[in-house]
Amino acid sequence: MKIKRSERVIDMSQHLLDHPHELVSLTYFAERYESAKSSISEDLGIVKKTFQDRGLGDLLTVSGAAGGVKFIPKLSKEQADKLIHDLCDSLSATERLLPGGYVYLSDVLGDPIALRKVGRLIASKYANEKVDAVMTVATKGVPIAQAVSYFLNVPFVIVRRDSKITEGSTVSVNYVSGSSERIEKMSLSKRSLKRNSNVLVVDDFMKGGGTISGMQSLIEEFESTLIGICVLAESKYHGERVVKDYDSLLFVDSVDTQTKKITVVPGTYLSRL
Amino acid sequence: MKIKRSERVIDMSQHLLDHPHELVSLTYFAERYESAKSSISEDLGIVKKTFQDRGLGDLLTVSGAAGGVKFIPKLSKEQADKLIHDLCDSLSATERLLPGGYVYLSDVLGDPIALRKVGRLIASKYANEKVDAVMTVATKGVPIAQAVSYFLNVPFVIVRRDSKITEGSTVSVNYVSGSSERIEKMSLSKRSLKRNSNVLVVDDFMKGGGTISGMQSLIEEFESTLIGICVLAESKYHGERVVKDYDSLLFVDSVDTQTKKITVVPGTYLSRL
Repeated sequence: MKIKRSERVIDMSQHLLDHPHELVSLTYFAERYESAKSSISEDLGIVKKTFQDRGLGDLLTVSGAAGGVKFIPKLSKEQADKLIHDLCDSLSATERLLPGGYVYLSDVLGDPIALRKVGRLIASKYANEKVDAVMTVATKGVPIAQAVSYFLNVPFVIVRRDSKITEGSTVSVNYVSGSSERIEKMSLSKRSLKRNSNVLVVDDFMKGGGTISGMQSLIEEFESTLIGICVLAESKYHGERVVKDYDSLLFVDSVDTQTKKITVVPGTYLSRL
Repeated sequence: MKIKRSERVIDMSQHLLDHPHELVSLTYFAERYESAKSSISEDLGIVKKTFQDRGLGDLLTVSGAAGGVKFIPKLSKEQADKLIHDLCDSLSATERLLPGGYVYLSDVLGDPIALRKVGRLIASKYANEKVDAVMTVATKGVPIAQAVSYFLNVPFVIVRRDSKITEGSTVSVNYVSGSSERIEKMSLSKRSLKRNSNVLVVDDFMKGGGTISGMQSLIEEFESTLIGICVLAESKYHGERVVKDYDSLLFVDSVDTQTKKITVVPGTYLSRL
């Protein structure tokens, strides 16, 4: 039974959105809907235009025998700007202040819609790089890594500060925790990352950068390459950061425990777009 | 500028898929596309049919002044059956065997597409229940909780075995780790779960059920209600489980460290559908 255009484009969009960065051949769609390739091409034109108009991303056409289309999720500068400013407002709320001047973030890290936005935002920046895996450290980095990995359509790997018997052999490195100046240990299951991988590192929060520096060492141990570092938020740090080249969506500029005022401003992400 | 039907239905579907379980008014769409409500109704008919035909879920119509449509992600029994059998095959691979008879699962828990399928599958079962939050324990339960929470469109909360200063006040409970018979402690940030919540508990793996029983105690401490328990995999357990009423997608029937044969079969989920 033939399927109408409007039904085809709904299903097509859904398939493409569910398989970002994956080449889908025209033949696949032609067979799926029992339609001529010429109709499929027209359908894809409509999908492409709608994705563009709605700021969902680009639909790339790859020509040739092994050709097809590839959906690349992207955010416009305006969308990025709005999202980051919304996050700044949300995180500047007084009630987020925790003893010790910490800022409560767990609700954002447990909100599936917010996470998807953050994931799309970070993935958007690395959309044109060859990323093989997203790396983070347990526990709070996990939701961000998962969200980003979805939009890049690559696996994410979790570095642990403890070691679990259910991971098999691991590779461990020592690192200096910037805040406490203590030597700590982190490890990654050998199976979870192939040699020669291009790795994007993400985390929820960066202070001195010690944890991220540890992940850099791990990437070296896996003979892999660091593609970029992006954290949800960084805080002011008095001292020299061990990590220099990174992006942050948000910058916790000041936390005044007396007046309970938290000031969160856009991080380096926006200015470096 | 007016937008064509095919463009409207693409954007509409995308909006609905991105906001599962959320009531979207006809007015919202009518204004978004500057179209008459009658056209929007027709569009939604097409979207509904396509979602049904493609097994994506139901589009419910809520009538009345505060009416609109609500997308409920669902999987058919056939889709659930296929997904679970595919997972059984994948997890029965010899190379997954770890010392001690453990089965390596971390790749599945780091695969965004597999996670979405599992998330949709679990969420599908609780689609008609009132769930306010998904709860899991760090670290390996997190990817599953995040995936499920997305399809139910509710937050997820992470119980921790350590306590972090960046969580604020916490509520802790003791529980008996079934495998080691040791008394352990787990805690949840006070802010992360409201009293009187309906909670769905998910985790990656269950042996004796001690961890899950700990989460049950936590739910009581938060004066909340347990709606259901679903784990990705359970293993054979010699002894009495402390948790009786649960679902598992997979059942690790036997692990033969001599022949390196792992047998994974469907868990209780399928038979209780």
